[in-house]
Amino acid sequence: MRKGNINFNIIFKVLGSLIFIEVFFLTIALFVSFLYKEDDTMAFVYTIGIAILVGLTSRILTNKSRNEIGKKEGFIIVSFVWIIFSFIGSLPFIISGYIPNLTNAFFETISGFTTTGSSILNDIEALPHGLLFWRSLIQWMGGMGIIVLSLAVLPILGIGGMQLFAAEVPGPVPDKLHPRVKETAKRLWIIYVAFTLFETILLIFGGMDFFDAINHSFTTMATGGYSTKQASVAYWESPYIHYVIILFMFIAGTNFTLAYFGFKLKFRKIFRNEEFRYYLGFILIFTIIISLVLYYTSSFGIEKSFRDSLFQVVSLITTTGYATANYIKWFPFITVLLFISMFLGGSAGSTGGGIKIMRIVLLIKNSVAEFKRLIHPQAIIPVRFNHNPVKAQIVTNILAFIVLYMLIFVGGTVIMASLGLDLETAMGAVITSLGNVGPGIGELGPAGNFYSVPDMGKWFLSFLMLVGRLELFTVLILFSPTFWKN
Amino acid sequence: MRKGNINFNIIFKVLGSLIFIEVFFLTIALFVSFLYKEDDTMAFVYTIGIAILVGLTSRILTNKSRNEIGKKEGFIIVSFVWIIFSFIGSLPFIISGYIPNLTNAFFETISGFTTTGSSILNDIEALPHGLLFWRSLIQWMGGMGIIVLSLAVLPILGIGGMQLFAAEVPGPVPDKLHPRVKETAKRLWIIYVAFTLFETILLIFGGMDFFDAINHSFTTMATGGYSTKQASVAYWESPYIHYVIILFMFIAGTNFTLAYFGFKLKFRKIFRNEEFRYYLGFILIFTIIISLVLYYTSSFGIEKSFRDSLFQVVSLITTTGYATANYIKWFPFITVLLFISMFLGGSAGSTGGGIKIMRIVLLIKNSVAEFKRLIHPQAIIPVRFNHNPVKAQIVTNILAFIVLYMLIFVGGTVIMASLGLDLETAMGAVITSLGNVGPGIGELGPAGNFYSVPDMGKWFLSFLMLVGRLELFTVLILFSPTFWKN
Repeated sequence: MRKGNINFNIIFKVLGSLIFIEVFFLTIALFVSFLYKEDDTMAFVYTIGIAILVGLTSRILTNKSRNEIGKKEGFIIVSFVWIIFSFIGSLPFIISGYIPNLTNAFFETISGFTTTGSSILNDIEALPHGLLFWRSLIQWMGGMGIIVLSLAVLPILGIGGMQLFAAEVPGPVPDKLHPRVKETAKRLWIIYVAFTLFETILLIFGGMDFFDAINHSFTTMATGGYSTKQASVAYWESPYIHYVIILFMFIAGTNFTLAYFGFKLKFRKIFRNEEFRYYLGFILIFTIIISLVLYYTSSFGIEKSFRDSLFQVVSLITTTGYATANYIKWFPFITVLLFISMFLGGSAGSTGGGIKIMRIVLLIKNSVAEFKRLIHPQAIIPVRFNHNPVKAQIVTNILAFIVLYMLIFVGGTVIMASLGLDLETAMGAVITSLGNVGPGIGELGPAGNFYSVPDMGKWFLSFLMLVGRLELFTVLILFSPTFWKN
Repeated sequence: MRKGNINFNIIFKVLGSLIFIEVFFLTIALFVSFLYKEDDTMAFVYTIGIAILVGLTSRILTNKSRNEIGKKEGFIIVSFVWIIFSFIGSLPFIISGYIPNLTNAFFETISGFTTTGSSILNDIEALPHGLLFWRSLIQWMGGMGIIVLSLAVLPILGIGGMQLFAAEVPGPVPDKLHPRVKETAKRLWIIYVAFTLFETILLIFGGMDFFDAINHSFTTMATGGYSTKQASVAYWESPYIHYVIILFMFIAGTNFTLAYFGFKLKFRKIFRNEEFRYYLGFILIFTIIISLVLYYTSSFGIEKSFRDSLFQVVSLITTTGYATANYIKWFPFITVLLFISMFLGGSAGSTGGGIKIMRIVLLIKNSVAEFKRLIHPQAIIPVRFNHNPVKAQIVTNILAFIVLYMLIFVGGTVIMASLGLDLETAMGAVITSLGNVGPGIGELGPAGNFYSVPDMGKWFLSFLMLVGRLELFTVLILFSPTFWKN
């Protein structure tokens, strides 16, 4: 850690530069809106103008000296870029008048950037194509951002699940984020774009029109879950479309370095990865149990029971949040299982949220090891992952993460309940936000939306989305007094 | 850990001897039943006969050689003594015909011995005095057992919250439980008995008759919560009685080595203890919040709002489980807070169940320390308790405990939901059993009872009570294959 004060000059400079990435994407949305000739075009023009103004101002006000980004600056930049992008990204909704209220527009946008997918919209189809496209594009950008963050930036800051794989990636350059980020980002984004295009083609092949196909591909790969339809994926009845989306949700919930091997058809390397095997295992076990229960407690046939179960399990474990069924109407036992799967989350280094499979597996292993330690108190019994012993320091960090996650879950539930939500709805709202899932349980299930949540609740849930998306520590460390000391 | 096979000879011998403790208490219950001349006297006579027979048989079948109890034998004895006591203890209910069903009778008895206090009885007052007294006495015995266990036996086995205080008690004799247990037990039981008598006198002073007073004192000091009335403590309207019970629940939830200081009026020593300060702090904060919410959302006056809140908070945090109000009818937010307090539990070394305050505080401290570790990765930042740094090994053990606790909570909820309970009721049933609380939430709230839970659910919840009471590892280690290897 570099000594000395925090370099605000470099923070403003970097944030100012990053805004131009958003300007680039806003321009694409402007182009789409222009093609459809609806009433949202000028909203994009104004937003782009404002964004450029803000970006340029921060560039002009900062000087060129000292090009070094330290750890502390890293924490601040990572947290604030999400907030700034969300404020700017909400402007098209506000200016166009389709979501006139700032709270709602900000909630909808940060829910997009964090790839959560919780919505306040009562009638999604009423939105013009430009805004719909922007809404999906926001999630796609968020997904891109999180891949770079979890695979290249956070490991350098000492945060996030990829620490476990630290030995497998080339040694990070301490305190200097720039060169490594750029190189990693490029390779990963190529895969991200390729998978998105591939899914789009497969969806069009299944009868979806181009606009819906590209939008859903954006939000699938981001494990975001925004749909262009109020009914979500349930709008399409084609089993083919459901299975295609299941496949790509599954890919998006996989560690992107593994997805890269998949892209090169090196499947053996994928199956040798322990986290992937557990990821697959959890999905299969949950799907089998839920399919059977659904089959025996509903009027569905065996294929539909299986498909609906698989879809919901993959959608919630990967934290995508699409729905093909209103699962809270199913047998209560299923609600319990689906609620649990919201905690799991995707793999480390994927676009998925949640606690992450790897952490869950590691802490179960640590608890099992504790039994052995009780029987053999003299022996040193390490926890192993991918056949390698895991450093005690990483185990403690992961356990601290889980404890923090649970504390936020509990504290958040108390706060939401104090706003008048019942226990189940409050728990669902908190976990779906913190885990970046999208739909909740109780009154905020897949058929409902967050419109009715009080404003204070919306801001609080927005905060939870950010905290969850940035692996807790990144945001919360800014509240630690030690952070601001020299 | 001693090498070689498990010494079953000593296990049967010790278990056989311990049965005579239960015979002693059964004789007291027989005496009470005899005094009241109701129809339960013969049930006690038969039970005592059976118990003596079982005890003598195990003494006769075992030889006198090798008087040494190793760790493995310790785990087996501790787990099985609870089960055997519960089977024998359920006989008076079965033989008398008041709880003819084995499942129900066993559930009621193990719920007593583990000081849980969940009941299957629809009409408690219909029981004759002998059985009512036996039911309370079971809890009082369970409380006695757990004090010795947590303060003298489990630390030697390397389990339980008292590890933290290991430095403060004289060095344990490894692998030899006998001498230390006896000495510690004697001193602690004197306090336990003294507090029980003291509460009885204060309750009689408040207008309770002698029988109800002694029964409630038994179940208060055990943090058990069985009442002689269907309406629980709500039967008495006297604020004085409520406050007396609050005071003694609070004492029972305190570490008994501290209660010993309290007994000697050394209050400064008590307040210097960190766990005690947090224990008091949690109770005050929860009570203040709930009182205010209750005052503004109900028609209660300020004193009744405060008293009912304090009573329910202390009753649930100490895991006693008495009720003076049907709290699930209160504003939903309160249910959430009370549900959380069920997780906390009393202090280590008290008769209270739950996770225990000390563990909760320690893991919050570890998460806070993790922030400091992120900012200063080179520095060694230990967690401190009572001003002393806590060994990393103990932190890992406590974290493993919490993770295991949460896994059992989640897995248990799934199992109970698969039996048809809704999410809220299933969660409540599991946490109230695992935490040895008593009443749950949802349909199993303080006004309901466990009669309607399916038989399989009752056996499973009984198992959870035992697992929770014996600090998880003691019971679960018996399921580990390593345990049974040489």
